[in-house]
Amino acid sequence: MLTLYSAPRSCALATRIALIDAGADFTSKQLDLAKGDQREAEFLALNPKGRVPALATDQGLLSENVALLIYIAQSFPAAKLAPLDDPFAMAQLQAFNSYLSSTVHVAHAHRYRGSRWSDDPAAIEAMKAYAPTAMTAALSLIETHLLQGPFVMGDSYTVADPYLFAVAQWIEGDGVDPAAVPRIMAHRTMMAARPSVIRALAEDA
Amino acid sequence: MLTLYSAPRSCALATRIALIDAGADFTSKQLDLAKGDQREAEFLALNPKGRVPALATDQGLLSENVALLIYIAQSFPAAKLAPLDDPFAMAQLQAFNSYLSSTVHVAHAHRYRGSRWSDDPAAIEAMKAYAPTAMTAALSLIETHLLQGPFVMGDSYTVADPYLFAVAQWIEGDGVDPAAVPRIMAHRTMMAARPSVIRALAEDA
Repeated sequence: MLTLYSAPRSCALATRIALIDAGADFTSKQLDLAKGDQREAEFLALNPKGRVPALATDQGLLSENVALLIYIAQSFPAAKLAPLDDPFAMAQLQAFNSYLSSTVHVAHAHRYRGSRWSDDPAAIEAMKAYAPTAMTAALSLIETHLLQGPFVMGDSYTVADPYLFAVAQWIEGDGVDPAAVPRIMAHRTMMAARPSVIRALAEDA
Repeated sequence: MLTLYSAPRSCALATRIALIDAGADFTSKQLDLAKGDQREAEFLALNPKGRVPALATDQGLLSENVALLIYIAQSFPAAKLAPLDDPFAMAQLQAFNSYLSSTVHVAHAHRYRGSRWSDDPAAIEAMKAYAPTAMTAALSLIETHLLQGPFVMGDSYTVADPYLFAVAQWIEGDGVDPAAVPRIMAHRTMMAARPSVIRALAEDA
């Protein structure tokens, strides 16, 4: 049995969509990050990182979207959510997801989690003020170089698509001009019409 | 033919060690990041991210350690560098590498690449001052929860080991007290004795 730990408007939306795409049987628990649920002892005992997404499996807990998305693709091969047997295509997919995780999400996190990188209130405010610039730069690289279209990897839907969709939810809130990333916006619109995405957004709300 | 683009003391050391472990035939080009080689038009045409590691393959360019390390493991299966057919173990390995990439490396980068996240000189200085704290916190989680020992994944050597080793090169320079992370230090000492690591460090210098 799988249990997804997630939070509204977090990148755990990607994991949720992928689980639905895979036809996985799972339950989920929503954490209230503003209330600090992720720092409660009960959750930390499960995931010492204190972050979502986390996925409880019969074998133990897994975390990190980059890992969870491939885990789902590999555990439910019939859903064909990743080019599992093509090392080059798999690396392109993993590189895309890794860029979302280590560059795009990090740019986003400077908007309201600056305390990870400074204890100086003025510096934290400066990071917040710069977040639209950093986020625009990170997304522009995807817009220009990485998003093959119509799906991230071209004609095939993969687990990179829900991850990009989850991150693209933040565009307006992060002060990125949607007009600067029209291909990402078109991807977001296309994704929003998919039944798995509609169900995931409803569960996430 | 494979060509590794790397830089001394960068995390590309992980990719280099894994290529040697795999028995891959590769050449390498060292970039001088302080001189700005990574922002030269010639390199940007190859890798628009302007970062190392990057690996030129017959099928095109790949980047991001999280992707490259699995690419190497999957392309050279005889070297047994990852539990390729075990979805749970693969996810644990990928989660480890993803944590290095999106949390540990990011904490490190605040020491001298703060301009990614602010254009305010005082904020950049504040990030630099806090880097030892953030880096210690990130590594302590590995020390306590993620490093199974003696290798990252337990008894089996995987591509997570060179990645941890590459990141562990930064411990003293980042102001982390080695005494706070004795298990990571023991891993670093063990790794430094391996022939592939000795060769990689010599090539990297």
